[in-house]
Amino acid sequence: MDDRLKKQLDFALEIDKEKNIFRQTHLSGHGRNENDAEHAWHMAIMAYLLREYSNEPVDIGKVMLMCLIHDIVEIDAGDTYAYDEENKKTQAAREEAAKNRIFGMLPEDQAKELMSLFEEFEAYETAEAKFARAMDNVQPLMLNNSNGGEDWRKHGVNATQVHGRQDKTALGSKKLFEVVDAIISDNVSRGNIKDE
Amino acid sequence: MDDRLKKQLDFALEIDKEKNIFRQTHLSGHGRNENDAEHAWHMAIMAYLLREYSNEPVDIGKVMLMCLIHDIVEIDAGDTYAYDEENKKTQAAREEAAKNRIFGMLPEDQAKELMSLFEEFEAYETAEAKFARAMDNVQPLMLNNSNGGEDWRKHGVNATQVHGRQDKTALGSKKLFEVVDAIISDNVSRGNIKDE
Repeated sequence: MDDRLKKQLDFALEIDKEKNIFRQTHLSGHGRNENDAEHAWHMAIMAYLLREYSNEPVDIGKVMLMCLIHDIVEIDAGDTYAYDEENKKTQAAREEAAKNRIFGMLPEDQAKELMSLFEEFEAYETAEAKFARAMDNVQPLMLNNSNGGEDWRKHGVNATQVHGRQDKTALGSKKLFEVVDAIISDNVSRGNIKDE
Repeated sequence: MDDRLKKQLDFALEIDKEKNIFRQTHLSGHGRNENDAEHAWHMAIMAYLLREYSNEPVDIGKVMLMCLIHDIVEIDAGDTYAYDEENKKTQAAREEAAKNRIFGMLPEDQAKELMSLFEEFEAYETAEAKFARAMDNVQPLMLNNSNGGEDWRKHGVNATQVHGRQDKTALGSKKLFEVVDAIISDNVSRGNIKDE
C-alpha cells in the first residue's frame, strides 16, 4: 500500500476513538450520555435540513464537514462541558496539541485542510462556522429539552450561562434562535434552568 | 413556530433514536458494539478523505449525505447483519415501511429528496451510490480487522460470504478493493475467516 493511502487509513482508524468520548448531554427518551461521533452525525444532518434558516448563504458541504470533524480533537483533549469554567481555561491549549497530533496523521494537504477547517469553526467568524456552531448549540438543547431539561437541572445551570452560549446561535440563524429562546424561557419558567 | 420548521425539528429529534440501533461490528480496541449513527459518521468522513480513489468522479457532498442518512430506516426496521440470510429476506419490506414513516415526517420536498437519496444508495447504480456503499463495506472491515477479525470468528463467516459482499467494493473503488482483498486474504490465512 502506498504511503498516502496508509496515512489516510491510519487516520480513519484513529478517529474511531471519538465514539468513546462521552458528553454531558443525554439521548432523548432519558437515554444514556451521548458521544461525540453521534453528536457530530446529528449536527451534520440537521445542518443540511435546516440550511434554509442560515442568516447568510453557506457552502453546505463545508458546513457538514465542519460539523463532522469539529470534535475529533477531543480524542486527546477530552470533552469540556459548556458550563465548566475551570476546564475551559485549559481547553484551547489541550485542543491545539490534539489538533496537531491527530490531523497531523493525514497526508500534508489533508492535514492542513482539516486543521484549517477546525480553526475556522473555532473562530466563529465565517457564515459556515456561524451556522455549524448554531447546530452545535441547538442539537444538545433539543435533546435536553426533550428530556425535561434534566441535564440543566443536574448541573444547576442558570439562565445567564445558557444565554451566554445560546445567544450566539442568532449569529448563525435568527430564525432558529427564536426557537432556542422560547425553549430557554420555557425551561426557566419550569425551574429547569435557574432564573439568575 | 411554523409548520415546516416544526416538521423539520420533529424529524431531527426522531432520528436521535438511530443512536440506539446497534450493529454486529465492534469498535477498535476490542470495544463495544458500534451503533448506526457512529457508523454513518465514520463513513461520511472516510468518503470525504478517500474520494480521490473513487473509480468515477462523484458529487462528494451527495455521497456524504447518503452515508449520513442510509441507516435511518433501521430505527424501525432494525439492523440486518450482512450475513444473516434469514432476516435479509424481509429486509426490503421492513425498510420500505420505515422509509415512508420516518422520512415522511419531513416537509414534502425534503421527504421526497431523502427517500430518493436512500433509494439511490440501495440501488447501487450511480457513481455516488457505488462509492458510498464502498464506504459501508470498508468501514466495518477496517474495524473488524483491527480487532483481529473477532466479528468474523464469532459468526463463523466464510470467505465466500465475505467476498459476496466485499467484491462489490470494487464497483466504487478498485484501489480500495485492493486493500480489502489483501485484508480478506490475510484473515483467511489466519483462520479468522473460514476458507470455503
